[in-house]
Amino acid sequence: MSTDNSSEYFSSQFKLGILGGGQLGKMLLYETRKFDIHTVVMDSSPEAPSKIACNEFILGDLMDFDAVYNFGKQVDVLTIEIENVNVDALEKLEDEGLMVFPQTKALRIIQNKAKQKLFYVDNNIPTADFQRFAYKSEIKDSISNGALDFPFIWKAAQFGYDGQGVKVVRKIEDLNELPAGECIAEKMIDFKNELAVIVTRSVSGEVKTYPVVEMEFHPEANQVEYVICPARISDAVAQKAQEIALKVSEKIQHVGLLAVELFQTKDDQIIVNEVAPRPHNSGHYSIEASYTNQFEQHLRAILDLPLGDTKSKVAGIMVNLVGAEGYTGEVIYENMSEILGMEGVTPHIYGKKQTRPFRKMGHVTIVNESISEARKIAQQVKETIKVISK
Amino acid sequence: MSTDNSSEYFSSQFKLGILGGGQLGKMLLYETRKFDIHTVVMDSSPEAPSKIACNEFILGDLMDFDAVYNFGKQVDVLTIEIENVNVDALEKLEDEGLMVFPQTKALRIIQNKAKQKLFYVDNNIPTADFQRFAYKSEIKDSISNGALDFPFIWKAAQFGYDGQGVKVVRKIEDLNELPAGECIAEKMIDFKNELAVIVTRSVSGEVKTYPVVEMEFHPEANQVEYVICPARISDAVAQKAQEIALKVSEKIQHVGLLAVELFQTKDDQIIVNEVAPRPHNSGHYSIEASYTNQFEQHLRAILDLPLGDTKSKVAGIMVNLVGAEGYTGEVIYENMSEILGMEGVTPHIYGKKQTRPFRKMGHVTIVNESISEARKIAQQVKETIKVISK
Repeated sequence: MSTDNSSEYFSSQFKLGILGGGQLGKMLLYETRKFDIHTVVMDSSPEAPSKIACNEFILGDLMDFDAVYNFGKQVDVLTIEIENVNVDALEKLEDEGLMVFPQTKALRIIQNKAKQKLFYVDNNIPTADFQRFAYKSEIKDSISNGALDFPFIWKAAQFGYDGQGVKVVRKIEDLNELPAGECIAEKMIDFKNELAVIVTRSVSGEVKTYPVVEMEFHPEANQVEYVICPARISDAVAQKAQEIALKVSEKIQHVGLLAVELFQTKDDQIIVNEVAPRPHNSGHYSIEASYTNQFEQHLRAILDLPLGDTKSKVAGIMVNLVGAEGYTGEVIYENMSEILGMEGVTPHIYGKKQTRPFRKMGHVTIVNESISEARKIAQQVKETIKVISK
Repeated sequence: MSTDNSSEYFSSQFKLGILGGGQLGKMLLYETRKFDIHTVVMDSSPEAPSKIACNEFILGDLMDFDAVYNFGKQVDVLTIEIENVNVDALEKLEDEGLMVFPQTKALRIIQNKAKQKLFYVDNNIPTADFQRFAYKSEIKDSISNGALDFPFIWKAAQFGYDGQGVKVVRKIEDLNELPAGECIAEKMIDFKNELAVIVTRSVSGEVKTYPVVEMEFHPEANQVEYVICPARISDAVAQKAQEIALKVSEKIQHVGLLAVELFQTKDDQIIVNEVAPRPHNSGHYSIEASYTNQFEQHLRAILDLPLGDTKSKVAGIMVNLVGAEGYTGEVIYENMSEILGMEGVTPHIYGKKQTRPFRKMGHVTIVNESISEARKIAQQVKETIKVISK
């Protein structure tokens, strides 16, 4: 596929397939509209958010070989909005000539967190020390042997999402709450900042990185509270973060977006936390702040179009809207009008009808010429808007 | 309706109705997604562009009383994306308590260009001299009597759209090509610039104006080629344009957007050309360039939410993508990849499958920190992209 054939994508014959019909997929679909690309989405839920924004919607289990394979046979290029898909089916489609982005080789490395960690080790990419366990019982053995110390981070090897699948383990009893199955135990990093860099790689190999963003996590829910672009770090640290993100991208050889989550340690080392080969929460600010937002960039990359400018027009901060503690049921967004009255505020409501504590219900972007002014307004937004129930 | 009830709009019970399912409606619908507002669209075409982006689509004739009335009975707030709708039905709905924006009073003034001109005269709003004719035959009489001189601008009083319904009449034979029916003959203005100002007025009466934009028209097709924001005019002229646009808005007392098209004469007088009470081509640049784009602003206004910031983050120029002369048939966008490689370029393809000379097929926005750099790139875009047929 060469860039000379770009007019193909803008023809009525071309079909882009997206596995997963969640909110990330929906935001990706908005961008396909600008290019008038015919889209086909598969999701297991008849209530999938993407349903309203695609040309064709197919109900199907993303983990089912036949469902994914048959879906792939109907499209010209296939991408994902969630990693938890049947990679065997994608591999068969790829063998048969379908363009699948990210490629299954990249997806297999990333989908399993133990494999992902081994990949970093194999490629001399700095990452936190870890141990891999096939079963939960092995963790206890490792602790008894003195090979593993509290506290550590437990991560399910597969199928973690939205704060699920990651826990801080501080004492032996904490293990009881964890599911069995393959997992890793990661050394807790005493970090100064959590950072992220989104790298995009096109079919032709053009590569562009977004500016380094800074993430603030909710201490318990393990969900991002603020994403701040640009990160308030030195140029030297930013450059190191970009270099390491580029190295990960170079080694994985993905096509499309790769969000690289990083820790900045107390002594300004940069180490890789984990990666996601798709649009990412840390890039939502780009819709309002960047010349080219991450969703449009992903499309440009997988359709082998020239990549867009990743610079920011203005500073951007994203606040995740999560369900307030103590409320479960039909959602209400309290004080929406107040936050809309604040400068540079854009809410993105995901349309989930039911809230529960810490459920990701949307996000709000705050843009401003001044990053410190944006940070002040972001705090006001966070203190004002309440995601509660009736 | 008070701003305290804003959470209503974000509830699953609330329904926003939109009359017209064209491209403007589609771009409006993208913004409803951010707020998760349930939308119902009516259009007479089963192929309407909006169909893909709304919650419910109803096939119906916008000029039919019963169709519009029955549609209105299903929604909580009703707006339009095109003026050519059955205003009698809207008036009955309004009488019965439905919130219709723009209100029928504003719509009646604007829908008929003769009434619109009389409205300017009645309110001491500067506008080009004109004569009103019930039939085309009356134009000839006026010319014979010496009351009307060539050249003049003929405008159909009703139902003009997309360059249709407006012609320059230079000689008596030009009249033969025009349809019969109510029309106006307007004095040709020897202008320096065509400008536009979008004014937004919310249900509560909050008013905000966008910066003055400058429009360059294609000399024959009477379609905008470039919309440039900010206009390259003096502060004094910009202020005068804003004041006159605000006066029009104040007198019409619309709710929602009002795009006011203006002429800047050779001696720097500002006179009103015409207005549109809805999202407008002259505001498309705002999607990429403004803190709050015109579509989100229209929603904020009609839902009585606080209006957003109308400032620009960066300079913006919009290029209309129209079908090239000599090509009719299934559309191809030639050199799309080349323009995507230029700095700050975002195409918006409307998804019409068939092209014909001068048909509006999409638009491209160019944003840049520098307006002169943006203008250079806009020219390159225009010279590079070709809307042709297979």
